[in-house]
Amino acid sequence: MERLRGFRDIYPEDAEPRKKIFNVAERMSEIFDFSKIEFPSVESMDLYRLKSGEELVGQTFSFTDKGGREVTLTPEATPSVVRMLTARKDLQLPVKWYSFQRYWRYEEPQSGRQREFFQYNADIFGVDSIESDAEIIGLACRILDELGLEGKYSMKLNSRDFMESLLVSKGISELDRAYAIIDKAKKTAPEKTISDLEGIGLDPDSAKNLVSMFEVEYEPDSFPIDSFSYMGSDIEKLERLVETTKLVSSYTPSRVTIDLSIVRGLTYYTGVVFEAYDNDGSFRSILGGGRYDRLASLMSEQEIPAIGFGMGDVILELMLKKSDIKSPVSEDKSVYVCYSDPNLFGYSLSIANEFRKQSFRTAINMTARSLTAQIRQASKRGFRYAVIIGEKEYGSGNMTLKDMTSGKQIEITNKEIGNLQNLF
Amino acid sequence: MERLRGFRDIYPEDAEPRKKIFNVAERMSEIFDFSKIEFPSVESMDLYRLKSGEELVGQTFSFTDKGGREVTLTPEATPSVVRMLTARKDLQLPVKWYSFQRYWRYEEPQSGRQREFFQYNADIFGVDSIESDAEIIGLACRILDELGLEGKYSMKLNSRDFMESLLVSKGISELDRAYAIIDKAKKTAPEKTISDLEGIGLDPDSAKNLVSMFEVEYEPDSFPIDSFSYMGSDIEKLERLVETTKLVSSYTPSRVTIDLSIVRGLTYYTGVVFEAYDNDGSFRSILGGGRYDRLASLMSEQEIPAIGFGMGDVILELMLKKSDIKSPVSEDKSVYVCYSDPNLFGYSLSIANEFRKQSFRTAINMTARSLTAQIRQASKRGFRYAVIIGEKEYGSGNMTLKDMTSGKQIEITNKEIGNLQNLF
Repeated sequence: MERLRGFRDIYPEDAEPRKKIFNVAERMSEIFDFSKIEFPSVESMDLYRLKSGEELVGQTFSFTDKGGREVTLTPEATPSVVRMLTARKDLQLPVKWYSFQRYWRYEEPQSGRQREFFQYNADIFGVDSIESDAEIIGLACRILDELGLEGKYSMKLNSRDFMESLLVSKGISELDRAYAIIDKAKKTAPEKTISDLEGIGLDPDSAKNLVSMFEVEYEPDSFPIDSFSYMGSDIEKLERLVETTKLVSSYTPSRVTIDLSIVRGLTYYTGVVFEAYDNDGSFRSILGGGRYDRLASLMSEQEIPAIGFGMGDVILELMLKKSDIKSPVSEDKSVYVCYSDPNLFGYSLSIANEFRKQSFRTAINMTARSLTAQIRQASKRGFRYAVIIGEKEYGSGNMTLKDMTSGKQIEITNKEIGNLQNLF
Repeated sequence: MERLRGFRDIYPEDAEPRKKIFNVAERMSEIFDFSKIEFPSVESMDLYRLKSGEELVGQTFSFTDKGGREVTLTPEATPSVVRMLTARKDLQLPVKWYSFQRYWRYEEPQSGRQREFFQYNADIFGVDSIESDAEIIGLACRILDELGLEGKYSMKLNSRDFMESLLVSKGISELDRAYAIIDKAKKTAPEKTISDLEGIGLDPDSAKNLVSMFEVEYEPDSFPIDSFSYMGSDIEKLERLVETTKLVSSYTPSRVTIDLSIVRGLTYYTGVVFEAYDNDGSFRSILGGGRYDRLASLMSEQEIPAIGFGMGDVILELMLKKSDIKSPVSEDKSVYVCYSDPNLFGYSLSIANEFRKQSFRTAINMTARSLTAQIRQASKRGFRYAVIIGEKEYGSGNMTLKDMTSGKQIEITNKEIGNLQNLF
């Protein structure tokens, strides 16, 4: 009996960073006034045909259900979220939603890419403004900061509508091919990117200029905006990007930059796009998103501006493991309850339940074995305290408490449980 | 674009009780020293054939994947958990694990039963003792108590090995048919249950006696144990049940009883079985579980005693809605930041981020509209405070804070944010 290829079992030793991702993302979302939603993990295949190219459709975990419907395990959040949004006419805009669910892709499994994964997703619907751009990217930064990654990543911004104006002004019509070339620029030799861009019609000087900019991450204040002044009124799109980048910097002490090589693969982005990368460069992007103002009108008759991002569990989990996250349960508040005779279990349990009321991680021995073996177990499992109950303790209504760090033992009453650290 | 039949969209107004279920179950599990695990939502169909009858197999959301494998969306937790357990030879027993995942059944949707649902699951592996029986049922009680359901439910226990001894001692060999009859007894006229039991070979007096006991929930101290003394040494199984029920009572102020009609459908239980019911009787069981000591040996060569339970989201969510759960985010710590001019967004944002640092649920206006419209929005959305930023506030480096309950307005500094309740 084995699990399927491309799927993971998460044992307790791997669960801590994952719990932290979930809890921090939920708390920061609520603080930013986002509300939680959930949607099905199985959707009609038609939902993805509208928005995604055949590439994504080919990678879906799709099948025909017992009722003959062509369905798929959800490969991403956005189509479901937009479906939920457009299904309700009574929602007061702006709507700020987040979710945290499993997704599936039928791809060849590789390091950091499984057939099943979790993704946190957040969106703002109903407003197209610099302020809403900054809010969602700011939320992304604050989640990473609170996860303990402050200063360890860069948030990189670009603008798809600026890039479109720039490429069009230089005579390029095959925008999708241009984005595909630019998307790979960081992993490609500059000469190759230059010749690829020339291949779709960019003049050699412009190609060289653009590719040289891909190698720099600009602080918003030092971006050479004047070198694009030939673009006329389209320069406003670049000014909005610079302004947004400055605002995002006020959310976080981590680095926020402009990077013209960030274009993101999907064709439906219409404004700012962004990705976060760890500063060591060891991983693929930690999260990514952007503005997509035309998707709602594809799925309904409504025009609803939208911006959002998704953040997978796999890269984050690897980063958090590297940065040595502590368990959220304080190990100073942990106790293992031992007793010398099975008849003392009832009394020992009343003491265990007292510790539990005070939120101690509390285990009580459940098998017939010697006190010595029980105390050895407490030590092996890393409990801070052991409680020892024998006939004497039962008679006096007290307990013997052993500090497993120092080895010291004292007799205490129930009432002293709240104040253990002062007893030794 | 619609969601599939039997699936739910959860909008924010329904998300609060669900978040509470997840958070309380996670916290109580950690306090009881259970560790979190996760497993795939897609498993090989073979995993279920071993343990479950064709009935469950017929209800699975199963399909053939693109690689030709016969797979299914997971219909329940236990087979995956036991697969994870037996895959690792290095685990130190006892193992105490919990999980919280989605499950799917391809059944006809009805009230309280969808094709997709969440289930919390907890198990103890490696020990067969009264103490471990009490621990897992005690955990189930404490989760319900912490959810605000203290005193609103009964935890009902029975013992499958006692029932087996009893039925066998009365000459019944078709145990599965007997359990199926008993399982339906509470929803069936007593005369019908009596004649059904007679139909599989129980003598009329015993059938009448047994069915009369189905109508009573016994406190452990008042269970008529003497009336089973003819069972000889098998009476020990009943004594263990009584003892376990007494111990569980020490975990919770809620009602814990013995109910001989609780047998649970699945055939693999080997000891204590239990279910929780709300006292109003409005719902099906809230949770259920039992001891299943023979499953691990079906899936591997290892004999590993086991006890566990599962608790679905649907019934609990309905109960929590009825009992009017409050939002976990205190509405006293919420603020909406308004500003008179888009140029003041940067300054307003620095104030919003100060509130966020102090864990206020904080929204900031993101669209071009009048101050009056922004303050109206703060009121409509139920924020406790509005912050108002105009040129005057920007000049002085302060903010105007409006208490939306009383309507009072005062000017405060950043430093006073931590102490709002004392200002009015």
